[in-house]
Amino acid sequence: MPFTPSPTDEKAIATIRTLAADIVAKSNSGHPGMPMGMAPIAHLLFSRFYTGSGKDAKWINRDRFVLSNGHGCALQYIMLHLLGYNLSMDDLKSFRQLDSKCPGHPETNHGVDGIEVTTGPLGQGFSNSVGLAIAQANAAATFNKDGFELFNNKTYTFLGDGCLQEGVASEAASLAGHLKLGNLICIYDDNHISIDGDTACSFTEDVEQRFLAYDWHVLAVNDGDKDLAGMYAAIEEAHKVTDKPTLIRLKTTIGFGSKIQGGAGTHGAPLKADDIVQLKEKFGFNPEEKFVVPDEVYAAYKEIQQKGADAASKWHKQFDEFKSKFSAEHKELSRRIAGELPQGWESALPTYSPSDSAVASRKLSETVLAKLAVAIPELLGGSADLTGSNLTRWGDAVDFQHPSTRLGDYSGRYIRYGVREHAMGAIMNGLNAYGLFIPTAGTFLNFVSYAIGAVRLSALSKHQVIWVATHDSIGLGEDGPTHQPVETASALRAIPNLDFWRPADGNETSAAYKVAIEARHNPSVLALTRQNLPQLEGSSIEKAAKGGYVLKEVENADITLAATGSEVAICVDAAKELEKQGLKARIVSLPCMSVFDKQPIDYRLSVLPSGHPILGVEAYGKHGWAQYCHVFHGMKGFGASAPAPALYKKFLLEPQPIAEKASKVVAHYKKSNVAAVSPIELEAAFSGEA
Amino acid sequence: MPFTPSPTDEKAIATIRTLAADIVAKSNSGHPGMPMGMAPIAHLLFSRFYTGSGKDAKWINRDRFVLSNGHGCALQYIMLHLLGYNLSMDDLKSFRQLDSKCPGHPETNHGVDGIEVTTGPLGQGFSNSVGLAIAQANAAATFNKDGFELFNNKTYTFLGDGCLQEGVASEAASLAGHLKLGNLICIYDDNHISIDGDTACSFTEDVEQRFLAYDWHVLAVNDGDKDLAGMYAAIEEAHKVTDKPTLIRLKTTIGFGSKIQGGAGTHGAPLKADDIVQLKEKFGFNPEEKFVVPDEVYAAYKEIQQKGADAASKWHKQFDEFKSKFSAEHKELSRRIAGELPQGWESALPTYSPSDSAVASRKLSETVLAKLAVAIPELLGGSADLTGSNLTRWGDAVDFQHPSTRLGDYSGRYIRYGVREHAMGAIMNGLNAYGLFIPTAGTFLNFVSYAIGAVRLSALSKHQVIWVATHDSIGLGEDGPTHQPVETASALRAIPNLDFWRPADGNETSAAYKVAIEARHNPSVLALTRQNLPQLEGSSIEKAAKGGYVLKEVENADITLAATGSEVAICVDAAKELEKQGLKARIVSLPCMSVFDKQPIDYRLSVLPSGHPILGVEAYGKHGWAQYCHVFHGMKGFGASAPAPALYKKFLLEPQPIAEKASKVVAHYKKSNVAAVSPIELEAAFSGEA
Repeated sequence: MPFTPSPTDEKAIATIRTLAADIVAKSNSGHPGMPMGMAPIAHLLFSRFYTGSGKDAKWINRDRFVLSNGHGCALQYIMLHLLGYNLSMDDLKSFRQLDSKCPGHPETNHGVDGIEVTTGPLGQGFSNSVGLAIAQANAAATFNKDGFELFNNKTYTFLGDGCLQEGVASEAASLAGHLKLGNLICIYDDNHISIDGDTACSFTEDVEQRFLAYDWHVLAVNDGDKDLAGMYAAIEEAHKVTDKPTLIRLKTTIGFGSKIQGGAGTHGAPLKADDIVQLKEKFGFNPEEKFVVPDEVYAAYKEIQQKGADAASKWHKQFDEFKSKFSAEHKELSRRIAGELPQGWESALPTYSPSDSAVASRKLSETVLAKLAVAIPELLGGSADLTGSNLTRWGDAVDFQHPSTRLGDYSGRYIRYGVREHAMGAIMNGLNAYGLFIPTAGTFLNFVSYAIGAVRLSALSKHQVIWVATHDSIGLGEDGPTHQPVETASALRAIPNLDFWRPADGNETSAAYKVAIEARHNPSVLALTRQNLPQLEGSSIEKAAKGGYVLKEVENADITLAATGSEVAICVDAAKELEKQGLKARIVSLPCMSVFDKQPIDYRLSVLPSGHPILGVEAYGKHGWAQYCHVFHGMKGFGASAPAPALYKKFLLEPQPIAEKASKVVAHYKKSNVAAVSPIELEAAFSGEA
Repeated sequence: MPFTPSPTDEKAIATIRTLAADIVAKSNSGHPGMPMGMAPIAHLLFSRFYTGSGKDAKWINRDRFVLSNGHGCALQYIMLHLLGYNLSMDDLKSFRQLDSKCPGHPETNHGVDGIEVTTGPLGQGFSNSVGLAIAQANAAATFNKDGFELFNNKTYTFLGDGCLQEGVASEAASLAGHLKLGNLICIYDDNHISIDGDTACSFTEDVEQRFLAYDWHVLAVNDGDKDLAGMYAAIEEAHKVTDKPTLIRLKTTIGFGSKIQGGAGTHGAPLKADDIVQLKEKFGFNPEEKFVVPDEVYAAYKEIQQKGADAASKWHKQFDEFKSKFSAEHKELSRRIAGELPQGWESALPTYSPSDSAVASRKLSETVLAKLAVAIPELLGGSADLTGSNLTRWGDAVDFQHPSTRLGDYSGRYIRYGVREHAMGAIMNGLNAYGLFIPTAGTFLNFVSYAIGAVRLSALSKHQVIWVATHDSIGLGEDGPTHQPVETASALRAIPNLDFWRPADGNETSAAYKVAIEARHNPSVLALTRQNLPQLEGSSIEKAAKGGYVLKEVENADITLAATGSEVAICVDAAKELEKQGLKARIVSLPCMSVFDKQPIDYRLSVLPSGHPILGVEAYGKHGWAQYCHVFHGMKGFGASAPAPALYKKFLLEPQPIAEKASKVVAHYKKSNVAAVSPIELEAAFSGEA
């Protein structure tokens, strides 16, 4: 059926364009060019294809829309307003102002329905959408039954030249092609403009050919300004392709309608007043009026809203029928939609006693994951091509693969991300954003840094995402400093709303998973060793879950040794060395500083009290440690390539040199007669807690 | 002329293969598969094409070889040994052991000639090689004269599936194609194996088609195990293509010769003893002997060595002739080869006095760059598509572009990197590694995090690379928390051998550039504001160049306010507020903590003395501040989207709330009667300095 646009379509498109100009002009900040250029495709997509409802915004089978070129968010806010989501015209008028629901780039944490993921940092949204598409495919393969197609939503993504230049998007695109994600439809705003001007200056590759190389279905519409029928036909064709993601290259004119349309001048700054006047005149609007939505446009969108609400209602009715036929599956799915964890899942966590053998924490993690994979079906595992090193795959895991590959199927819960850490991070954000999954994935801790652009967005967007970051220090040995993180922990600890764990033994590894699984609104990174760690006397899941605790208490201590991960056991031995010298050392384990920071002040002061010095010990650099100790002992620069024991010796991370350092610290405090005030005490004085 | 391999070629290849197996077996750690698979192409490349000399290893026009699949470094070490570089057979035997010249991945900082860049983190080496190729093209366009082709070297790069999956390499490849870098020849080891097994599980894209999309010249050799003539022909053809980089897809068998050849088992672990026995027998070697290089192989490589030495000699002779005809250019080039800065360059740095107007530090940076672009011709600028925001391009800059684009030429010193931060970081490492350039490039500070995988390698490899990181905090305003770094500074400050600068005014901006330019062996990141900063009373280049200094001294101070960047001026005003309350506040500016840390202890204690409390103030999170202050005042979470002044108010970063906090800190110390010991004093006690 050929598509014929109506006069209302033209009016709606002109409305979006003028509204975008008004919004950015009022805030005197923002990006009018993209919204004006993509107004036609946005109107067409949301009026003819998108299925979702502002009245039932969390409906699990809604289509997902992602604005990867997030700087053009005025467009998304306008569309959500027209679609009846919880954005008023006043909200649009407060664009980019303090406490507005319409921040400068789309954010999931602003209470605005329909913002599926936080975008703006280029390439992220596109990669998130690959995660949303994987999530849909897995949900469909897991829950759909004959006669009950509970999951069939599409993921629609807008993206621009900037997104396509970012490596994270290249990684995600390659994986999406491999996975044959037919439910993903991406529209590339080929407007030939980036901030530096014409893309001719840096971006001249053949994007269509590149995506064909990734095994995408590729379409082109050469007049994205006016050819609504062409756009309609392209999206319609994309819907028919079920075993490949689709990229539609859409040539648009940035800032369409402006006197300077087609130029970089419309990209990131408001249009001038006289330009907006002529724009409105051109489109038949009164140039004296601002923020105008003609009645016929509101009316048309009311109908669209109703269509979306009807679709949601129909689904809920179907889901009720599903309950009568598949009650267990209904219960399970309802639980996951509600965001509740399975009852009693935590009993799956293994515990250890000191007589148990020494085990690498990556191996301890493998044991936990094998248990949790059974206890928590929403866990979606994976690794960036380091499965055998990260030990992230449980025994009977099925790979998430297109069934035609015979390597797995779409119900598989283990994702082979390939050597694509950044995309993995962004895809995990999308997986979590879908609303049914807790993604976990592995790489070496050092290479979490490749993905940190996505990790900070996990934290900002409050996504529960769990990184299994093995080979956590110089303890990885021979691979050398190119692979040994000495600073990555600091980078991660500095990110707000992220828990960085470095467990010291089996109980602490279980504790790290316990808290990471219970933390429904923040990402966690678990730093795990390659080398074996003994099971500690004094550790427990309960204690470690506080982020920091006294592993070994002594009365009238001369010093506290505070350490994390592999260095805790070394400090236990250092304390024995000190005992020989008549010095009493307490041992504190600090597996997660951010979780420790959230404990009541009395507890924290009981762990790190004033009255004697505290020596921090960790096989990383000192940055960030001064808030927990008086003196730090650790790495002063990069690591080296050698077997791990040789490195621990070289870098003085053995019991003897640690004891020597501790003994000097004790002597210094005795000699200088300065009171050793716990850093916690000072902090408490100004946090309003004590 | 068709190529016919000799029996010595076969012997040499077998030697490389068996040697690789021996090296990894002795160290009981490493990756034999790739060296055994790529032995034929390595031998062919180095015996027939590569021009360089172990005897004159720093010869500036040598061919550059980059092993992007750096885990296979046994291969590179073997080749360097055969080519007469400073690696003995004993060095090879110490592979991956403590203080070996042969670490687990190739490192430039181990004193081994011929290791051009540090590789191993996948995708980096390939991207470095794009930088090496740009450097060659720029050097040629700048210094070559009629009859004097001083620069015509090639860059040869080996890479594997892992590199091709990494986004950083995709970014670099797209840019290399755009720039038409005909001097770059990359050989892709298409062995179909990654750590997770067959690449079928995650990497099924059509690599040849993708590189065609990037406008590369693409060739394929389907038998990389034996078809020496085919490999020869491919490299020869690549040499003939001068306006496109070349990718040669070479199908090899990983671990060729092993009983488990072709499988992931040969990738990252030593071959078993009996496997090595059969391998040696298969190749006509005595299985009882280890580390054997037959005389004929050494002899053949002696000839190759001589060829390289002759080429270098010939070049030096030509360079002497160049001197007589182009003495100014000769002098300039000699200076740059020697790694010396131009005499008196630092007089180009602007200075300011408090009566000068308030200016954004990104704008101050623009002024500096315009001066330095003239004073320091080795400066190569650029930006990741944010030129107009980063203000990195000086007025008369010429873009580095292929002349056919008419957008610039190869002598241009401004690189349009596109929205490719990670590749930009890796390319800058390559540019610096070439030996003639100081690369500087811009992006928003927040997006340096996209590139941090490359940044840490700048630091590890001691590359002088300067990041112009504008929009450095919530001060960027409306773009919101997706673009506002609150943690990035901490990530960068934690990297060893990297200077993170956050200048507070014009003099400090000049100081940051002064130190960054003088620091020939470490990267620097300059965090610069979008918003205007007043010129401070008390700042100077000399003082700020110490990384930290007393901006305003008072006798009998009640408190020190220590701040950086835009918060220094706010603290100056806070001190005025405190004065009204009868409290005396010193002001310390800490533009670069790592440079401050290198100052003598007496100086540091004079800046941050004991005796009164120190309040740290910065529009970032507190992580890392406790080593410089007692209490910190700054961001507790992510930023927000609003005009900058509204954000400074919201987050209590105005004079009044800072004064209030300071006043509470003073009261607390007076009340608690605890001596305020400077954190510097404690540090000094254990650094052996005091």
